[in-house]
Amino acid sequence: MTQEHDRRRSGTHWKFRRKLYIIIFGSDTLAGKGFDVALILSIILSVIVVMLDSVAAFREVYSEQLIFLEWTFTILFSIEYLLRLWIVGSTARYVFSFYGVVDFLAIAPTYLSLILPGSHYLLVIRILRLLRIFRVLKLAKYLGEVNVLLGALRASRRKIAVFMFTVLTIVTIFGSGMYVIEGGENGFTSIPRGVYWAIVTLTTVGYGDISPQTEVGQAVAAIIMILGYGIIAVPTGIVTAELTDPANRNISARACRTCGRQGHQTFAEFCFSCGQKLNNED
Amino acid sequence: MTQEHDRRRSGTHWKFRRKLYIIIFGSDTLAGKGFDVALILSIILSVIVVMLDSVAAFREVYSEQLIFLEWTFTILFSIEYLLRLWIVGSTARYVFSFYGVVDFLAIAPTYLSLILPGSHYLLVIRILRLLRIFRVLKLAKYLGEVNVLLGALRASRRKIAVFMFTVLTIVTIFGSGMYVIEGGENGFTSIPRGVYWAIVTLTTVGYGDISPQTEVGQAVAAIIMILGYGIIAVPTGIVTAELTDPANRNISARACRTCGRQGHQTFAEFCFSCGQKLNNED
Amino acid sequence: MTQEHDRRRSGTHWKFRRKLYIIIFGSDTLAGKGFDVALILSIILSVIVVMLDSVAAFREVYSEQLIFLEWTFTILFSIEYLLRLWIVGSTARYVFSFYGVVDFLAIAPTYLSLILPGSHYLLVIRILRLLRIFRVLKLAKYLGEVNVLLGALRASRRKIAVFMFTVLTIVTIFGSGMYVIEGGENGFTSIPRGVYWAIVTLTTVGYGDISPQTEVGQAVAAIIMILGYGIIAVPTGIVTAELTDPANRNISARACRTCGRQGHQTFAEFCFSCGQKLNNED
Amino acid sequence: MTQEHDRRRSGTHWKFRRKLYIIIFGSDTLAGKGFDVALILSIILSVIVVMLDSVAAFREVYSEQLIFLEWTFTILFSIEYLLRLWIVGSTARYVFSFYGVVDFLAIAPTYLSLILPGSHYLLVIRILRLLRIFRVLKLAKYLGEVNVLLGALRASRRKIAVFMFTVLTIVTIFGSGMYVIEGGENGFTSIPRGVYWAIVTLTTVGYGDISPQTEVGQAVAAIIMILGYGIIAVPTGIVTAELTDPANRNISARACRTCGRQGHQTFAEFCFSCGQKLNNED
Repeated sequence: MTQEHDRRRSGTHWKFRRKLYIIIFGSDTLAGKGFDVALILSIILSVIVVMLDSVAAFREVYSEQLIFLEWTFTILFSIEYLLRLWIVGSTARYVFSFYGVVDFLAIAPTYLSLILPGSHYLLVIRILRLLRIFRVLKLAKYLGEVNVLLGALRASRRKIAVFMFTVLTIVTIFGSGMYVIEGGENGFTSIPRGVYWAIVTLTTVGYGDISPQTEVGQAVAAIIMILGYGIIAVPTGIVTAELTDPANRNISARACRTCGRQGHQTFAEFCFSCGQKLNNED
Repeated sequence: MTQEHDRRRSGTHWKFRRKLYIIIFGSDTLAGKGFDVALILSIILSVIVVMLDSVAAFREVYSEQLIFLEWTFTILFSIEYLLRLWIVGSTARYVFSFYGVVDFLAIAPTYLSLILPGSHYLLVIRILRLLRIFRVLKLAKYLGEVNVLLGALRASRRKIAVFMFTVLTIVTIFGSGMYVIEGGENGFTSIPRGVYWAIVTLTTVGYGDISPQTEVGQAVAAIIMILGYGIIAVPTGIVTAELTDPANRNISARACRTCGRQGHQTFAEFCFSCGQKLNNED
Repeated sequence: MTQEHDRRRSGTHWKFRRKLYIIIFGSDTLAGKGFDVALILSIILSVIVVMLDSVAAFREVYSEQLIFLEWTFTILFSIEYLLRLWIVGSTARYVFSFYGVVDFLAIAPTYLSLILPGSHYLLVIRILRLLRIFRVLKLAKYLGEVNVLLGALRASRRKIAVFMFTVLTIVTIFGSGMYVIEGGENGFTSIPRGVYWAIVTLTTVGYGDISPQTEVGQAVAAIIMILGYGIIAVPTGIVTAELTDPANRNISARACRTCGRQGHQTFAEFCFSCGQKLNNED
Repeated sequence: MTQEHDRRRSGTHWKFRRKLYIIIFGSDTLAGKGFDVALILSIILSVIVVMLDSVAAFREVYSEQLIFLEWTFTILFSIEYLLRLWIVGSTARYVFSFYGVVDFLAIAPTYLSLILPGSHYLLVIRILRLLRIFRVLKLAKYLGEVNVLLGALRASRRKIAVFMFTVLTIVTIFGSGMYVIEGGENGFTSIPRGVYWAIVTLTTVGYGDISPQTEVGQAVAAIIMILGYGIIAVPTGIVTAELTDPANRNISARACRTCGRQGHQTFAEFCFSCGQKLNNED
């Protein structure tokens, strides 16, 4: 085993594998960038093929072409997946990483559809592979933005949990109440259906497939609507508060060593108050 | 009575009661935590049972099992309620406390349903008992978040009252106006119904069960829609302003040792009220 | 005339008028507060009467009682209006003031309904009289909140105008586009109707009375929906930015005369940085 | 050519052209302002004419008058367009500028409708010409507000791109999932239609033309609704964070005279980049 490993490391085999790694996993070289762009286009095209395949008018006319394209993309992505498996350092880590799982889910449904017809529509999960798009579009900057947004959500996860719990409590109680008030003859055939209606109403979606018909029901609905209209302010406030937190902004807590003044911009080199050099190591 | 009380205090009876108190009301010991988790699971299961019982397809097949489960949960919760009554210090205070009322409402409807069929659906109120969930999930932190949100709502209660009053005035006037403009033949059969429509529209729920048919009505509806779309900014702004208020961010609970004044900025070194040095270790 | 005026000023007549003024226009004395509360209750009751009168089931049964109550309230409010006219300093100024106009509109429709049947539903305008409610509920504080909100709206009126103009442009162009794409057979019978649909969609109300049926129409509709979902962030951001403007907050720009440090709370008397007295006249 | 040019420059011809330029392109003189106001009124009237022309009831009765008005406005705007072409410094730059394109699109559809009936409804694009309205309404101030809003959107364009990408991914996956779950018999006839439904639901528009009928479908719909209700907080937070960014509030456009660096805080006295004194009169 070690022998084989040594042989690879020194031989052309290893060099080729290394080159492939830079092309497939990297995006700094021209070849790597080219591969990423080709991959992204293939992903978009393959998702469009799956979508068109679901349109009856299209499927009837172009049935063969669509099947051909679907298998072409699946085989291409399968080869890519196998290559990744081969060139990656730790196979297990890749297979169970987020991207590894997505890459697998992006090809599995086609093979599955041989046994289970219809399951190939699950291929739209391929769209998640588009997350690679960030690698090409000046990665660092976009990932920075992603991190700011994820950071804001993470920092407010407990507030969001409290909010979600409140929402679930409200829709359960109101949904059950409406089941008792309106009853099955007005569409509220069960409590889960009442809860579904409460969610439709609280989130201000309002399909209108189920809507209260009695006076009492409409009065209760009016309360849940105004509630939903008002409490949307809460998640908005939470996220905004995180995003505007001065601690997340450009003004640092760094103090000038000469005059002690704080509130300098992160990139400042001199104190705006006394003009002395700031200690940037701080 | 005093004799009996003494006997309890010194006897094993008292020790048992004390132990139960720690298990039932506390959540710091392993037993206490275990009890809380078991309770939360029972609550969730019992709410699911009530929900399933309301689904006709389920009720017909599993009628007996559902009734059995419902009574099991009710009897368990009744025993728990009686235990709480027994071990609590002041019975009256518990009975009329928020949790006491919720605990009672969580069992009452089952007994009530013996007289009033259908009322057992009110059992979903049990979901409120889930508030206990916060006790288990690192209580302090979550209650901190709850307090921040409640604090923001409390601080802006007058602004919210003004906003609600404005909303109610708008829907009353527009609802009546639409009753006059559209009339009963287009679904606006009375002013309260017009007000209901105005709430449905202003909150952007938009069921479509009642919608303006005349040109003038649609023009008025367009106004109320844009109004509703715009004024949602107001509660959002209010809550956000509270949550981002620097006075709620940088201002610590630290009290001045000289004059006792609180509300100093975190970086303050001297009391803004009496000018004495603040104790920053606090 | 002057003679009569003198007689009034010195006589009981004048005293009575002065007393009435304090009761009717003031709200500091017990009698004044009592009058205000009675007035508010009458207003709410009279609005409820108008609302009930519009419900066919109610009108048929209690027709006479409702007419009687309506005339009772109208006559009471008419007397109150005449009293206000009599005791107020400048009659003209009151008649054309906001409250004067509202007070007049609150009684006029009943008399108008003698000539124009149905116009008495306009009586719901009485609800505007409820603005007096703020006089009773610790006026100053509530008016303070009203002023903060109105101030935020006034300060951002130009941003709101720009936003409204953008919204109107979007709905006009999209509404016309959909008229061309979908045509009359799918409910888009004219451009104004298309604009109405665009408003219903952009504001996320979504009645569903008119909805795109063609593929192209649904694609365009998807764009306007995402647009509407996104640009609601703009008024929200505008109002929030106003409400959170530090210039409107508690932190003043006042500098300490000793150390020059700024950022003191408005109510601070001593500098938090050096502990010296702050110059509050600043 | 140069000869003719010279003749124009010195002759009355040139003076007339210069005068026209001030009237048509400027808005500082009385004549310029008058021209702008007349133009804006014409634009509004012409858009109303196009709208009325689309209303069947109107078109049938006033067909001739509407055609006459439409051609009158088109000829007037054509003359105005030719005048602009003639008096402008660089013809090419005007033709391909934003306003030049809009001015052309505002007359083209009428001529096009001679060949392609129905295309004259595209004339509502004339409403974009109303952007000129800002020139009259104290230009600088309104353009300032427009710039603040555009600046906030521009500064957060990457965050918005990340958000839009997330939204598109969610609607694609949920839309496809619902196509598999609900199927064509419940209105989800294809994946694109499922995606359309997902957009209608996520944006809380909720027409109700397509709505889930199965229990699983309603459960999935509930998830996407709560998701849509929650993530609206994200664009709101992004725009608000930009509009309230202290860096956009307190940071002036003032440049350091020594190193030319901009972006100093309003109260800064020394350049943060080179440490030299800032010129505060600037």
